[in-house]
Amino acid sequence: MYAVVVQLKIKPEMREKFLAAAMDDSTCSVRDEPGCLRFDVLLDNSDPNKFFFYEIYRDENAFKAHQASAHFWRWRAAAEEVLAEPVNASRCTTVFPRDYT
Amino acid sequence: MYAVVVQLKIKPEMREKFLAAAMDDSTCSVRDEPGCLRFDVLLDNSDPNKFFFYEIYRDENAFKAHQASAHFWRWRAAAEEVLAEPVNASRCTTVFPRDYT
Repeated sequence: MYAVVVQLKIKPEMREKFLAAAMDDSTCSVRDEPGCLRFDVLLDNSDPNKFFFYEIYRDENAFKAHQASAHFWRWRAAAEEVLAEPVNASRCTTVFPRDYT
Repeated sequence: MYAVVVQLKIKPEMREKFLAAAMDDSTCSVRDEPGCLRFDVLLDNSDPNKFFFYEIYRDENAFKAHQASAHFWRWRAAAEEVLAEPVNASRCTTVFPRDYT
């Protein structure tokens, strides 16, 4: 499986707008993309302005389909406004569990 | 839910030993801890020596139970040998999905 771990730092005053955009991207990705198995949004307990996205796709093509989706582009548009700095995204391969569900 | 995102850098020559220890910790945590909902091990595609652990617990107490488990201590013992540098662990709270499964 293809995974993406994204670290995000938001502008404090954009918190509500970030949360709405993240919920939209998370909800639509899991609901509408057959190749998106998971899209978790996490708050870092050490800093109210730090978040993670944890995304699992069936393969790299499924991630490319995600990047072509309308909800991804809604997220990208919001991201330009709400993020305090560029995201730090790591493209990964799942090692365990082997039969990811 | 309580989540932990761990970034790890291993010694190249310790790869097999790391993988065995990570599989043991991942497998036993999900199988034997009622409060551990997920323990994924990911390889960073940009560097064969970079990995992530993605762990989800029902709450902080479930994470404390994890830290008291025999398999966690087996991992800790192996970690002293296989890691190239101290781990970078972020303690988090899940935001989406709300009803984490």
